Amino acid sequence: MARETNSSFKAEIAALLANKDSAALKARLAAWLPADLAPILSELPVEQLAVLFRGCSKELGAAVFAYLEHGAKPKLLKVLTQAQVAALLNELPSDDRTAFLNELPLEVAMQMLGLLTPEERKIAQDLLAYPEHSVGRMMTLDYVAVRPAWTVRESLDYIRTHGYDRETLNMVYVTDEGGHMLDDIRVRRFLLADPDTKVSTLMDGNYATLAPTDDREKALLVFRKYDRVALPVTGPDHKLIGIVTADDMLDVAAAEATEDIQKLGGSEALDEPYTTIALTKMVKKRASWLVVLFLGEMLTATAMSYFEDELAKAIVLSLFIPLVISSGGNAGSQAATLVIRALALGEFRLRDWWRIMRRELAAGLMLGLILGSIGFLRIIIWSRFSHIYDPSPLRVATTVGTALVGIVLWGSLMGSMLPLILKKLGFDPATSSAPFVATLVDVTGLIIYFTVALFIML
Amino acid sequence: MARETNSSFKAEIAALLANKDSAALKARLAAWLPADLAPILSELPVEQLAVLFRGCSKELGAAVFAYLEHGAKPKLLKVLTQAQVAALLNELPSDDRTAFLNELPLEVAMQMLGLLTPEERKIAQDLLAYPEHSVGRMMTLDYVAVRPAWTVRESLDYIRTHGYDRETLNMVYVTDEGGHMLDDIRVRRFLLADPDTKVSTLMDGNYATLAPTDDREKALLVFRKYDRVALPVTGPDHKLIGIVTADDMLDVAAAEATEDIQKLGGSEALDEPYTTIALTKMVKKRASWLVVLFLGEMLTATAMSYFEDELAKAIVLSLFIPLVISSGGNAGSQAATLVIRALALGEFRLRDWWRIMRRELAAGLMLGLILGSIGFLRIIIWSRFSHIYDPSPLRVATTVGTALVGIVLWGSLMGSMLPLILKKLGFDPATSSAPFVATLVDVTGLIIYFTVALFIML
Repeated sequence: MARETNSSFKAEIAALLANKDSAALKARLAAWLPADLAPILSELPVEQLAVLFRGCSKELGAAVFAYLEHGAKPKLLKVLTQAQVAALLNELPSDDRTAFLNELPLEVAMQMLGLLTPEERKIAQDLLAYPEHSVGRMMTLDYVAVRPAWTVRESLDYIRTHGYDRETLNMVYVTDEGGHMLDDIRVRRFLLADPDTKVSTLMDGNYATLAPTDDREKALLVFRKYDRVALPVTGPDHKLIGIVTADDMLDVAAAEATEDIQKLGGSEALDEPYTTIALTKMVKKRASWLVVLFLGEMLTATAMSYFEDELAKAIVLSLFIPLVISSGGNAGSQAATLVIRALALGEFRLRDWWRIMRRELAAGLMLGLILGSIGFLRIIIWSRFSHIYDPSPLRVATTVGTALVGIVLWGSLMGSMLPLILKKLGFDPATSSAPFVATLVDVTGLIIYFTVALFIML
Repeated sequence: MARETNSSFKAEIAALLANKDSAALKARLAAWLPADLAPILSELPVEQLAVLFRGCSKELGAAVFAYLEHGAKPKLLKVLTQAQVAALLNELPSDDRTAFLNELPLEVAMQMLGLLTPEERKIAQDLLAYPEHSVGRMMTLDYVAVRPAWTVRESLDYIRTHGYDRETLNMVYVTDEGGHMLDDIRVRRFLLADPDTKVSTLMDGNYATLAPTDDREKALLVFRKYDRVALPVTGPDHKLIGIVTADDMLDVAAAEATEDIQKLGGSEALDEPYTTIALTKMVKKRASWLVVLFLGEMLTATAMSYFEDELAKAIVLSLFIPLVISSGGNAGSQAATLVIRALALGEFRLRDWWRIMRRELAAGLMLGLILGSIGFLRIIIWSRFSHIYDPSPLRVATTVGTALVGIVLWGSLMGSMLPLILKKLGFDPATSSAPFVATLVDVTGLIIYFTVALFIML
């Protein structure tokens, strides 16, 4: 669809609202997808937005509401009457409603629950009872379940009379009388089959499921494995209790990647968009890690104070401190990041740690030799043009080169093993961020550097 | 489904293969989902795998083939007869086939194309003609398109006779005689409507599309925006040419996150799983960035050599070099990572750079004051117990504290602006990894540190 510019559309909507021309308004709104409509409507004054929600169909209202900006939702609810709020909340798809209620302060969420019909309230409470970031929280109940003994004709009639709202009619699920999961069958097979065929003859008893308590990260791996656009969720007794759709998993994938990336960058996960999070809140999240890293890095001063006499004897050593320790830190960041991502993608298990260690021993040694050689050559070549490395440039070069091999190897090992150790201890491996590894490697790198120097130079 | 242990299942399959009991074999295989079956079958000797592929149905063969491990696919094709390979390739879903052909050396891919029927070859060539990582490469042609003038009954009959293989019968697309996209309609609406209704009365002309040349990263944002399990792809003339499903987008999301995370960790994207990539290949990808960073970090030695006299006068300054410069690097890593992720999620545009800069100025100042105060206090307190800061601990503390404020502020600014500058210049913003920013900040940080020291201490 050709999209008009947002501002002219907004002006038009405002004019239609002012004229109370609800027929024209409905027609204009229908030409837009809820996802496109919501950001524009979010910018309207909340009173206009309320008028609009009263005017439009329940379905459109619910669809648009789910896409409104976080700030606009509670504001809108405040200016709607209680009956209007109740109608809207009852109409919302169950997974969108769970997500919305979860964002609210507890007391407001409770008030909202009170507005739901007993049936919808039960659904909402059940979904909210699952832990945050679990499959249960993302479930929708808009699925179709039929019985094995029904015919295809009966099944299609059932689908017609129990038409569900969302775009999830891909799979029809087969359950027994008690609601226990028996199979999933593509809708296509119902359309292609003879109407008198029994559902049971279409079954192959072969399907993948999620548990409501599964972490969303685990669900993501299952979705990726089976390449499904929706997966059924079954409870501990194998009862079918909902489905999760792949479009929601895309949001999970983005959220999980954001969390990992922010941790890898050395801050707490912000949990809110960078552009809208309050400044003080963001500074708090960033400061906590910066302070921890700072306290850790203080050990470098402590470590160096032990070598103060050596430093005084050979000031030239201090010139290479940043170069040497940062190389270890960089090698460590690389290794940590690669291992953390491979863990997140389920590429290997903790018990394979020795395979990783062997790889990193080899890789770290090669990388160390490369950097060590460059460092060695750089000092030797430079010493032809400058006297800062006198009296013995060869010794300086050998010290720096040898220390680099050791430190890069050490950094690669530390970087790769740290995420595994964190995971083993029950922490998020992404905590061993690039800055975290770099800090650890800085302290030990200094010790390696000065120890090598002691042997070679002093 | 209860899952047997893989090894007993493998043994059973091997036994059935040895006995040539193809009926029992088919029954056993049918109880497994292709995604579960493939990793187990991948471990079979390739001759057994070939026997199995000859024995099983075309559909199952094609479904399992797509999930086989990369190494197993070409091996299997080598032991199948040409006719069998042709049958398999013609049966593969078009998007899986595109992905498979793309992995092959060009000459092998050409041979494979030659085995396809003229019709399938045309399809495969068209898809491969789109750039790598574009929507075109991920398209599947398994969609259903009807005409506005048809009735619902005619449409359902058409769907029945043109039954498609994959689980994408969610949306029915409406096109005109020339194949131009007119609308998308949920299959559900066809099932719920009176059979004599015209398709045109179900249309609202309101839909979202992708272009075949869209980058997969852009497609991901569109999918997330509209919460669809499938989106139609239209050509420049608005012709419907395929669809993309959300399950494939999950793989895109994972691949894009991996690429960004690996770059953020300071190495090139590996493009292969960490656990299986050849060691030398991985070392090459990691070494290139480590060397660049190393060369950059060499400037620290150059910068410091300018301050060698000052260092000699106050060795105590050198003790805090790692602490001071790494704090700037950490602050920069945080800022860079947050900005890069926000860019990838489409949270803001380049022209909003001044908003980011203002935020980072404020955040950097606060963070700098926090770390600066801690550093100042640490030195003052320590000086009660030690004489390493004599003769003037207050001056040392003031130097370190002041330098920290400046460096953390500078790091935050550099870290946040660098990704924007890279993007503006047409590079991937993720290139400004934590180690890259840290290296830049190290060099400038040293200059800030020594300049402050010159004013306060010397």
